[in-house]
Order: sequence, then C-alpha cells, then structure tokens
Amino acid sequence: MKMHRIHFLPHDRKIEVPDGQTLIRAAMEAGVHINASCGGEGLCGKCRVIIEKGRVAEGISEKLSAEDIENDYRLACRSIVCEDIVVRVPVESEVDVSVLNVRSGPRRTARIREMDFDELKEQGLFSPPMEKKYLELPAPNAQDHLPDVTRLVSFLKLNHGEHSLEVNLPVIRKIPDVLRAQDFRITATLARPVHEGGKTRIINVQPGDTTANNYAIAVDIGTTTVYGQLIDLVSGKVLSQFGDFNAQISYGEDVITRIMAAEKPGGLQKLHEVVIGTINGIIRRLIKRAKVDADEISTLTMSGNTTMTQLMLKVNPRYIRRSPYVPAASLYPPVKAVSLGIELGDHVQALVYPSVSSYVGGDIVAGVMGSGMYRTEELTLFMDIGTNAEIVIGNRDWLACAACSAGPAFEGGGIQFGMRAARGAIEDFSIDPLTAEPMLMTIGNVRPKGICGSGLITMVATLFENGVINNLGKFDRDLQTARIRENQGVWEYVLAWKDETQIDRDITLSEIDIENLIRAKGAIYSGCMTLLEEVGLSIGDIQRIFLAGGFGSYVDLEMAMVIGLLPETDPEHVTYIGNGSLMGAKMSSLTNRIRRDVVDVLRKMTNFELSETASYMNHYVAALFLPHTDMNLFPKLKARLEERKAIHAGKRA
Amino acid sequence: MKMHRIHFLPHDRKIEVPDGQTLIRAAMEAGVHINASCGGEGLCGKCRVIIEKGRVAEGISEKLSAEDIENDYRLACRSIVCEDIVVRVPVESEVDVSVLNVRSGPRRTARIREMDFDELKEQGLFSPPMEKKYLELPAPNAQDHLPDVTRLVSFLKLNHGEHSLEVNLPVIRKIPDVLRAQDFRITATLARPVHEGGKTRIINVQPGDTTANNYAIAVDIGTTTVYGQLIDLVSGKVLSQFGDFNAQISYGEDVITRIMAAEKPGGLQKLHEVVIGTINGIIRRLIKRAKVDADEISTLTMSGNTTMTQLMLKVNPRYIRRSPYVPAASLYPPVKAVSLGIELGDHVQALVYPSVSSYVGGDIVAGVMGSGMYRTEELTLFMDIGTNAEIVIGNRDWLACAACSAGPAFEGGGIQFGMRAARGAIEDFSIDPLTAEPMLMTIGNVRPKGICGSGLITMVATLFENGVINNLGKFDRDLQTARIRENQGVWEYVLAWKDETQIDRDITLSEIDIENLIRAKGAIYSGCMTLLEEVGLSIGDIQRIFLAGGFGSYVDLEMAMVIGLLPETDPEHVTYIGNGSLMGAKMSSLTNRIRRDVVDVLRKMTNFELSETASYMNHYVAALFLPHTDMNLFPKLKARLEERKAIHAGKRA
Repeated sequence: MKMHRIHFLPHDRKIEVPDGQTLIRAAMEAGVHINASCGGEGLCGKCRVIIEKGRVAEGISEKLSAEDIENDYRLACRSIVCEDIVVRVPVESEVDVSVLNVRSGPRRTARIREMDFDELKEQGLFSPPMEKKYLELPAPNAQDHLPDVTRLVSFLKLNHGEHSLEVNLPVIRKIPDVLRAQDFRITATLARPVHEGGKTRIINVQPGDTTANNYAIAVDIGTTTVYGQLIDLVSGKVLSQFGDFNAQISYGEDVITRIMAAEKPGGLQKLHEVVIGTINGIIRRLIKRAKVDADEISTLTMSGNTTMTQLMLKVNPRYIRRSPYVPAASLYPPVKAVSLGIELGDHVQALVYPSVSSYVGGDIVAGVMGSGMYRTEELTLFMDIGTNAEIVIGNRDWLACAACSAGPAFEGGGIQFGMRAARGAIEDFSIDPLTAEPMLMTIGNVRPKGICGSGLITMVATLFENGVINNLGKFDRDLQTARIRENQGVWEYVLAWKDETQIDRDITLSEIDIENLIRAKGAIYSGCMTLLEEVGLSIGDIQRIFLAGGFGSYVDLEMAMVIGLLPETDPEHVTYIGNGSLMGAKMSSLTNRIRRDVVDVLRKMTNFELSETASYMNHYVAALFLPHTDMNLFPKLKARLEERKAIHAGKRA
Repeated sequence: MKMHRIHFLPHDRKIEVPDGQTLIRAAMEAGVHINASCGGEGLCGKCRVIIEKGRVAEGISEKLSAEDIENDYRLACRSIVCEDIVVRVPVESEVDVSVLNVRSGPRRTARIREMDFDELKEQGLFSPPMEKKYLELPAPNAQDHLPDVTRLVSFLKLNHGEHSLEVNLPVIRKIPDVLRAQDFRITATLARPVHEGGKTRIINVQPGDTTANNYAIAVDIGTTTVYGQLIDLVSGKVLSQFGDFNAQISYGEDVITRIMAAEKPGGLQKLHEVVIGTINGIIRRLIKRAKVDADEISTLTMSGNTTMTQLMLKVNPRYIRRSPYVPAASLYPPVKAVSLGIELGDHVQALVYPSVSSYVGGDIVAGVMGSGMYRTEELTLFMDIGTNAEIVIGNRDWLACAACSAGPAFEGGGIQFGMRAARGAIEDFSIDPLTAEPMLMTIGNVRPKGICGSGLITMVATLFENGVINNLGKFDRDLQTARIRENQGVWEYVLAWKDETQIDRDITLSEIDIENLIRAKGAIYSGCMTLLEEVGLSIGDIQRIFLAGGFGSYVDLEMAMVIGLLPETDPEHVTYIGNGSLMGAKMSSLTNRIRRDVVDVLRKMTNFELSETASYMNHYVAALFLPHTDMNLFPKLKARLEERKAIHAGKRA
C-alpha cells in the first residue's frame, strides 16, 4: 500500500499513513490532538488545519469561507491524504492540556467542601479497606512441614484473630520466595470485605516491614478530562494529582458520538484501549510525582458516567443511546486492574462506582458519596453541570435524581467561538454601561481565542443586566455601538476585534449563541423544577445547593442566578465541591464504610426520566427566558432590574 | 548465529537449530519425543539415537559400547549439533502414545469400582455444581429501564428464589447482546457455592434454551501421563476420554528432575506452558470425540501430585525438593481456566485438588474422594504405586497418609531393559520349571522391546517361586541353562535372544535389576508397616485394599504378594480403582458434595514423614527379601514354598 509522510506543526511530529486515510485519523495516530466536537462528521467545523506544504483531497465544507480555503484552511476530518504534506494545527484547533493542571480555586466562591481523614475518623466512618500487617512467622523445620500458604493463614488466625481469609493464585505464586527473602519476616496486605461476613483477602506479600507504605489511586473518568489522585492510606493525604484530556476526545466530544464510535467494528476495543491509555499515563505521572514505589499501591477506585464506565470496562454501551435507554449494569464487581490493561500490580483490584441509569452515572453517585449529602438532614440539591446535567435532590432519608441534556453550550459547543476552559478562553467580562464597550479577562491573561462556558454565562448575564440584550436574548438594535452588528442575517456583539485576538478573526457573541445558552440553562432549571415537583417540593424547600464538576467550579454564582441557570438563593447556601466524582473515588479509597454505604444509596436513589414526565416541557418552555417567565422566582434580580429601569427612566426623564 | 538443519527419522520432521545446541533439545523443539529418564544428564543412556548422515560433536558415554559407537549410536543428550544431520530415533528410544488409549481392563482383577451418577443420587451425595436455567425475561420499555444485569438478577430472585447472586465482568460484557439475541429468552449457567452461605455465580448466559447441553472436563495430570474425560452433567455419563504423555517428559522423568528443570531461568514458565499444551491437546480431542460445542463446557477439575499441581499453576516447586520439603499451598482457590492458558471459555473456572504435603498430592486426595474410602466404615488401605508410592490408611473417622520413594523400578527405570507399559513391553511371563525356558507375552503381541513394571513383578515372582532365584534375589548358579550367565561380573537371565527382539540385543534380567525391584517393593511394604504401626494397627486389621494408578491396574495381585509388594490377603478384599485421580476429578465435576467433603477430608488426614519415623529403617531392612524376613506375614506363600520344597526333596530322594 502506498504510504505518505505527514509532518504536523507546531508539534513537529511525523507519521507515515496509507493513501486515502483521513487527516484527523492520522493526527490521532501521531498523538496530535485536534478538536473534533462533532466526532469527525464534518459538522462542527472545529478541526480547521492549514496545509502548509502539499495538498489533500476534499477537506472543504460550508464551515470554511472562500477566504479560509484560499488560505489553505481545510477540515482535518474531511481531508484525505494523497501525498506527503506539512500540516499546521492552528491555535484555535488545539487541545491545550496545561490549564487542567493549574491549581486554581473557584472564583467568588462561597465555600469549598472536602472531607478529610480526621473528619472520617471523628464521624466513625473510618474502616480501612486495605491494611498492612508486619508478621514474623516461624520457619518450617523437620517437625513442622506446614505448606507456606497454610503457615501464613494459620499465623494470622492464631496471632491476629483473622478467621476468614482468602488468597488468590498470583499471591500464592509469590509467597514461597517472599517468605524466605527475609527469614520469614513479611508484610501482608489485607483487603477488608466491604460487607460484614465477607472474607478478608490477602492481596500482597512483601519481604520485611513495609507497613509505612500503603497507597491508593482514585480516578475520575470524565467524557472530556480524566483526573487522578494518589493517596497515602496511612496519613489520608493526597500525595499527587494529575489531569489529562480523555484521549477518546478524538472519537467525538460527547457520549453519544463515543457510543457511535464504539459501535463501529473494533470500535469498542479501541475506545477502551484509548481511555485505559489515558488512565495509565495519569497513573505513571502520579507515581512519579509522589515518588512512591508502584508495588505499594494497593487499590484503585474509578468513577465516571455510565458510558465512560462501560467503555472503560469494555462493556458495549450501544443500548444506552437506544430507547428505552438501558445500561448494561448498575453495580460492577471489583475487577483486577491488570485485566483491564491498567499498569498496576497484579494484586490491585479496581473498584468502579455503580450507575443509577443510562444518564445518571457513577460520577454522580461518587459526588453524592463524596459530598456527604446522603448523610445530612438538610434537604440538598446536587447539580453537576456539563454537556449533560445531572440533578440529585434529597437527604439521608431519600434521594431522587434525573439527568437532562443541556447540550454542549457550557463546554463551548454550539457557540461559534466557544471553547473549553483553557488558556485564551474569555472567562470574565464586564461592559461600560454607557458605551457598551467590553472589558475581557482570559485564562492565562493572553489574547483571546474563544469563550468558555463560565465566561459565556457572565457575558450574557452582564449584557442582560445592562440592557444590551432583552429577556428573549435579543440585542437592543437601537444601541449606538459598532460592537453590535448584523452579520449574514444574524445579530452579534463583537467581543474582540481581529487584531486583538490569537486567531486573526473577530471574536463575537451572536444571538444564536445566546439562544443556545438559554436552551441549555432552561433545560437544567426546568429539570430541577420538574424533579422538585415530582417529589412534592418547591424550590424554597431547598436548604443547600452543591455544585459539582469542572464547570460548576468556575461558574460565577450570581451570574448563574441572573440568567436563571440556578435558582435564586443566598450564595452562602451554595457549596462548590469541585470534582465530586474524584472526591467520591478518593473517599472510597480511604474507607470501606463509603464502599458499603454506596449500595444503600443506590437502593435509595429513585431515577426520574424527565422526557417521560408530562410537566417537563411546560417547565422548559417557561424557562426559555432570561431568567424565567415567572420573575417572582428571582425576587432579588427583579428588584435590581426595576431599580435600574427607574434610573434609566429618570435619566431619560 | 550459524544454523544447522536436522532431519528426524522415522518422524520425517525437520528443524533448524543454532550451532552448539544439544540434540535432545532440538528433538524437543521439533516435537520428537526421545526417552530421557535422567532428564538429559547423560546418566541413563536411554536417549540412544543413530546419526545417519553427518556427524555430531561429543555424544559418547560409557553407556554406549564400542560397537554401538561404530554403528553411529550416540546419546542425544550429550550430542552437540555442529552441522546438518539426519538422525534416526530407534524404536527403543521412542515414546509410544498408542497404548495409552487402548481401553484394557486390568488382568486377573478382583473388582473394579467406579461410582456412578445414580449411586451419587441414591446416596444423597448429588448437589450439582453447575446448573442451567432457561429464562424468559420481560423486555425493558418506557416504564421499565432496569439495567440488563439488574433485570436478570431480579428475575432470578423473584421467579427462582435465587437470593445471593454474583456476576463477573466477562459475563456482564455478554449480557446486553445475549438478552436481545432471542427476545430476552436466555439460558443462564449458575455455579453453585461449594459451601453454604456462599454466593451462586452466574458464569454464562446464552441465547435461547441450551439447558440440554452442559458439560464438564476432568483431568488427571500425572508425571508421565495426562488423562482427560468429558462428562455430560445432565446424564452423568463420560462422553469421551483421552490420554497423552505429559510433554514435560522431555525435561526429565520424575518430579525431582522436573523441579530442577523449573529452577533454571525461564524453566518454570516453560514447564508450565508445556503441560498446559498437553492439557489443551487433550481437551481438543475430548471435544472433538464427544462432538460437543466447546462453549457448553461449564467447569474443569484437575488433580495431580504436588509438583505437577504447582507446575501446572506456575507456582515454583523449588522448596518441595529441599528439606524440610514444604509445598507452597494445600488448598488452591478456583482460578479462571483461560488465565492458566487453558483453551476453554472465559467463564470456566478450573478447580484443582488440594495437596496434603509435598509428596502426598492432589492425585491421592482425589483417589480418596473418588474411591469413597473416606465414607466407609471398613478400615481401608489405599495405595497408589509408581515412582513414588503413596499410602493412605483409614476410614470415615480418620485418615493417615505417607509417601515413600520407590524409585523408578515399577515404571521401568533403573532396570536395564525397563520401559513403560507400552507396545513391546513384556507384561507376562512363565517358565518351564524343568528347563527354566521362558514364555513371554508382550503388550500388543509384538517382539519384545523391554520389560514393564507389572511384567517385572510377574517375572521375579515366577523365578522365585520356581527356585530360579532365592529369597535374596540371586540366581541359582547351579541351574543347567544357557539363560543364566555371568556378564561383566553381573549374573543375568536371558529373557529373549537378540534375534527374537525388536532391538537387536539380548533382553536380560540381571541381579542388579532384581535388587532394584526388591528395594522398591521393600520401600512400599515397609511404608505400609510403619504407617500401620504409627496408628497402632497391624496388617491384619486392614479390611480392604484399594489399588490405584496405571501400574496398580496392571499388576498381578498374587504375583505382587509373592514378591512382598502387597501384604498377603484374600484377593477378594482387593479392589482396583484404576486412575483414582481422574475418578476423583470426575466426581468433583458431578457434585458439589465432593467438593465440600474434600476440605473435611484434608482436615482429617494426618501426614507422616516416613524418613523421620525411627522404625521405618528397621521395617525397610526387614523387607529387603523375597517376600520378607518374616515369612509368617505370608502364610500362604510359605505353605506353597514348603510344599514345593517337599516335592523337590522327594524328586531328589
């Protein structure tokens, strides 16, 4: 087969691919990430690349202007390799990993909550899942021929009261040599049963005393990003953490395109391998950063949404996207990490958080566990906002949950200049109320490249409160500013002029973008209202709001209340919990109590399918305004707007 | 590296090997079996080959005569390949597999005992370990979104009273598609817990109704031979059986040389792979012969001696041959067959019979279970005679066991013309009392090639009863026959003249051979006596003898009593059980009751180390006669000999 050489810039990566392959697949194979919101279908137009040398076949779409094409821009997903080429990935098409690992707390945050080791112990929730015991066994002799494993098990029984022990073959294989390495002095790692009456498993044996070194790894598998933590099981401290993009991104940005990719021949295997690759990369970094011995890692806990969980476990997710939307399983048994391809010791079992339904997954269950909402008396609203928003309402007595599809607006999708919360994203915004001139702040304080979800909310809220857009999300056509203009029949606001940007084009916010945002926030708000109604409560009954998720951590609370994404409430009652999924995975690494409780929580949690709830559509239509048709739900905003109106009226008067 | 081409005849196999490799290793790699009793150390002289074209370096030993060398005979284990050669493997160096699969019952047998399915049921011992259930599940719909696994588990709970179920990941992976293949009508295979309170595992799901097809495989892993059976779990019938040589033979004939081979770098992995290869070959044949679908095999049970078990499980056996002779483990957990490299469905768990000690292994435990001696009131002596003999004494209340090293005499080792019980082996023998001329019968009725163990016993017993040898095993130098001669200082009896044989040499029985046999039978008899003494009994208390093992099935009972291998008893009280190890493996495939009982049996069984029992040496020395120093232990033989003496005295008078 004829092969062609591709040279990717600015990465300086070279790869040979067969004639006829698409450019986006070549990039994947070269390890060059290119945005592909639509999963390579030629729809989103985000995978723009510049062909600097040579040419490709096809590669053209209505997403490219005549000028773009003239300047050798092509869509990578539509381009067919037919000769040697040099390809430049422009800055706006790049996935930038650096921002993931900047430890930045949420801005204007009420409170951040994360339970620690001492709190676990104080609350009687501490029940170590993995314990190491140092043992000095008697050596065999002419009168004592006990088999090695029997010797170990009997000693633990007689001297440590361990009555129900299990040892599996890989550990049996190690025992004879480990016993003799330091004269029958060894450390045994015991995995405690989650449920009473279960057996304690001896999962590892090591020569000498290694009781000081005992670690766990927790991993949150997000559709976009995967985060890991390495936790010291002796001190309870997080020794290192690291995040990376889920390498599955190249197969589509959302779960539906991923499922479709998994349905292609060999697709499930590929998507499985790719995410395991991401997890392995993170684990390697965690171990390197924490400077621990990989053999001392005793346990791995993972959480992710239902699709991510099934792809990671290589369980075909095809029925998740088909009515009646049934996942393969809820609870998964612990499984050997190595059997999944995860590069940890043969003794490490991977625990995976269970899912409630196809769209309320293990990440949400982990958030409920990590946030502690399942143990509190306070009536709590838990929200994880992303492409799909999940809502949980309840307390220690009952829990109700639902998912709603918000669309990708909060993650930059469906927004012309939308992007993820990465370097160059506009994340804060204000305007001069008189001139309507903007003031922008970007992540990393560089020239803007696009708009991230939290920036979008702040922008729309600010424009709305300042009367630049009305409650339908339409620009005030009468405002005297060059920033507002009609462009090919669509009204838009120019956030940054071409020469102020990194991308050599005007960055704008259009009425279509605003409409997409309103639809997204409307879906979430109406989801909350419907779920509350289903359980016979109203928004006023909610005593606490937990905001989880990367987006939830960046969003400006007051701005979110202005656009009607969140119910209006005292910001003191809102708690950011950050990555609830990772927090839950960490908690399960630290204590069996959480591992046990999760089964109860799962039993308590009632799932509501909003699409089958008659009132959902009414709530949704009512929420397709800024902030809502019923302004009485937003009394403080109502008062401010009336005050502002009065001032304007006064000015005009 | 320089390579040379080797052509093996009569197999017509060709292989290229690097310069400097030994010929025996080349044969191994070419899949050509050559006898190597001593494990390739140049000691046994059994690996004679003829270099028909080209030459090898070295290859000479004192085991070859000047004439042999002249005729291009070399020892394969000592020969270094240094150019292209053609090698003929002569008939006496070949391993002949054909005889293993001839279904021949023991000769002159008292009774053969094998428990059947109906007997199990009648005795209340039937508790199926694997059950198939045909289920018609409700399909999911808009009101019923139960995850697939939850749907299956709940259905089994509600409709079949299954309350404690487990499903592992490989089954979870199958469930979604299998449920939908035949409209939610499936067959689930349930693996029942061995112990009460354990969980039932769903180990397989199949579309439609497959309840009629449910099979098990039982495998006995012997040091020399591996036997398998394919069992129908619905009828309890054996549908096919097949035996083959354990391919580890090329690494040495006995367990000690195998352990030494396993201690070499990469050796454990190699020996593990080689025996798994043998097992896979047998399984393929079993499946083909029985014409069943491999996916319908639900379970695999294996048994073998302690070393075979550890090698098969890839557990280093090095401490088995080092004082104080400690095995790695007694009980092994069930382990996934595929994880051992066994080519069965991903759902098949392999059960392995536990060992009592380094030299009383799972094969003996399986024999005790299969023979039912652990459930009888009768005081029973169980013997498995081979290179190592294992003895178990007891009944349903208590069990005592011991192993003694008989040496390889019963398997043809240490006997100049010894061979395994294969085609051409002399297996029966009588003489003309006047001329001392022999009459031979060989396996397969062909010209003789050597002497197998059972033939050796018959031969020595016959020669002894006829006064050709005395009770010290020495030939009567006064007998007038050319058959008895001195050869290089050793007295021998010519069984077959050169031109009567397949091997173009006289086949003889020497005093050294007889001495080796006496030592072997003395070790076993004294083992019995010592063990009886340790438990406070005498030989007269034994009510039943079970003889297990391939050798045990071929031995002529009365002859074995003449030489003092077995205590003298009424043949009616002796039961041949054939391959007790395979029988036990089969029983465990059929009923969980046996799987449960084995743990109790293991607890009841006391192991005695004969080498550390002071009286063993006295018993041994006393047994180094034909049949024994104390003729009162053999009253019938004593009477016969006295009668014979009287006749002779009469003749002479």
